Amino acid sequence: MSEVNITLQAAYDLAFSCLTQHGCNDENAAAAAHRMIQAEGDKCHAHGLFRLPWYVGGVKSGRVNGSAQPTVNKLASSVVKVDGDNGFAPLAQKIAHGPLVDCARENGIAVLAITDMFHLAAMWPEVEALAEAGLCGIAVTASYPYVAPAGGIKALFGTNPMGFAWPRPDGPPLVFDQASSAIARGEIQIAARDGQRVPVTAGIGPDGQATTDPNVVLQGAQLGFGGYKGASLAMMVELLAGPLIGEFLSFEAEADDAGRGGPPKGGELIIAIDPARFGNPEHIIAHGEALFQEVLKQDGVRLPGDRRFKARELTKRDGIKIPESLYNEIMSLRV
Amino acid sequence: MSEVNITLQAAYDLAFSCLTQHGCNDENAAAAAHRMIQAEGDKCHAHGLFRLPWYVGGVKSGRVNGSAQPTVNKLASSVVKVDGDNGFAPLAQKIAHGPLVDCARENGIAVLAITDMFHLAAMWPEVEALAEAGLCGIAVTASYPYVAPAGGIKALFGTNPMGFAWPRPDGPPLVFDQASSAIARGEIQIAARDGQRVPVTAGIGPDGQATTDPNVVLQGAQLGFGGYKGASLAMMVELLAGPLIGEFLSFEAEADDAGRGGPPKGGELIIAIDPARFGNPEHIIAHGEALFQEVLKQDGVRLPGDRRFKARELTKRDGIKIPESLYNEIMSLRV
Repeated sequence: MSEVNITLQAAYDLAFSCLTQHGCNDENAAAAAHRMIQAEGDKCHAHGLFRLPWYVGGVKSGRVNGSAQPTVNKLASSVVKVDGDNGFAPLAQKIAHGPLVDCARENGIAVLAITDMFHLAAMWPEVEALAEAGLCGIAVTASYPYVAPAGGIKALFGTNPMGFAWPRPDGPPLVFDQASSAIARGEIQIAARDGQRVPVTAGIGPDGQATTDPNVVLQGAQLGFGGYKGASLAMMVELLAGPLIGEFLSFEAEADDAGRGGPPKGGELIIAIDPARFGNPEHIIAHGEALFQEVLKQDGVRLPGDRRFKARELTKRDGIKIPESLYNEIMSLRV
Repeated sequence: MSEVNITLQAAYDLAFSCLTQHGCNDENAAAAAHRMIQAEGDKCHAHGLFRLPWYVGGVKSGRVNGSAQPTVNKLASSVVKVDGDNGFAPLAQKIAHGPLVDCARENGIAVLAITDMFHLAAMWPEVEALAEAGLCGIAVTASYPYVAPAGGIKALFGTNPMGFAWPRPDGPPLVFDQASSAIARGEIQIAARDGQRVPVTAGIGPDGQATTDPNVVLQGAQLGFGGYKGASLAMMVELLAGPLIGEFLSFEAEADDAGRGGPPKGGELIIAIDPARFGNPEHIIAHGEALFQEVLKQDGVRLPGDRRFKARELTKRDGIKIPESLYNEIMSLRV
């Protein structure tokens, strides 16, 4: 597979110009492009420029508001709500970050409900930002019906990722971001694109039978990680990022899309916790380090997020590589 | 395996008298016995009378304060802290429930930190109680180092369960309670006791090799459910139920026990969210029902917790059955 090597800045400019040419205003395009390039910089290609055609398609079809002006409201002392004004998530997240941090610092814990928006990025950027502010963060969002409930064969839950971050005194925080499904939707799509197989735990065909063919899984249903337990988490995420905050369940997001093929409309729930309201924050963070030291004593064991942070250093220097086919697709999107 | 059939009341009396005879005061014994009998009533035998010898051992050794008087403090507007006074969790949980509910209703979200106590029960009772009060609940606790980090072979994390509950308008709430490990510690112990095998995903031997022998897993390490993702959740739980609230990590709890073989000392973190602070609670709960209806449309699919609620109806009528060997062990504990 031939690849094109470009700098992060060039990749950002490409995404930004593509989005503005198709109907995003500068503020929305900048936030969305930044999110895609963050993912590329960490070599999370499934959430990088790979998503750009989907972003563009959402705006072009008129489903997504490229000039969204998200608004912030307090629903209760510890509940911040951000209405995304029918735009992409990154601008709403950017606007919500400060009020969420303030609310968590004031009350010890706070919850952010982002509604009326389209989330098609990784989850780690928003929780990583909380940990950079000294807070512990948990974020969840639903998507489209991709995952079968435990014991079922029909896709109903989204891949419903959960992101978690914990502050560290030196260097980047402890961060993980993982789908409730055995593997991420984007990984299955990329396997299908590249003619690869997927693990047999990834999903089932429309007939409920096991398969390693990503195209058959895409027509059937993905499975939760670890079987029924991942499916339980997916259900929890549906409830928290859907009904609790007045947003779509994954199957409702699909119905709303009505076959237009855009990104899922829905909500995101983020919980932020301030260690400083539980005790001496330096002691608390140092105590976390004691756990990480024990983890790293074992041969060949890394902390979650470590691979991304290493990639981040490399791509700053070397730029990123994207498949030529994707590069050409993006270039053809430019008017 | 021959079994003894007793009523729930007889089982409660057995547990209560055993605990009071070995140093618990009435209040602590009642709360702990109630928790064990709740588990028996739902046919969660691994958290039922099976645990009684461990409870008794904890008090007899002097490690656990059988006359604990838990105290409640507010650390911040949305942070409730309960010091367990070195006793068993159930009394601290009982005392904490009201203040946590009030705090969540006032602020929309609240977090409870229970410290200085010994948790050896299932997690579902505390979150189920929150859902019965109309709240959504998430609870986590650490234990002893039983689970290897992703890619490692040495046990470091606890089995670190997460309980979740969501209110339903009719009948019992939606509740799940699942270990971060592939299977619960108690299930491996029971398999070892009964000469059964465990699934190959359950754990590894001290040499890091796969095994289905529960005794070898007990000497080696359990694995997270779904592999590295379950291990990530186990790490998250360590941080939330340990350092954040000023309590032991699982490996520190083991060091504190110092081979005395009692239950793990540590903490529990519970998050409660009040849907009524997000919108019309009836609409929110009805929207959750729309998801459950879709789940139940699929052949052979049950909701998490359903088996327990069905068992609860049966044991009210028929009583419970416990292995004769366990019954005899308990009878021998009585003075």
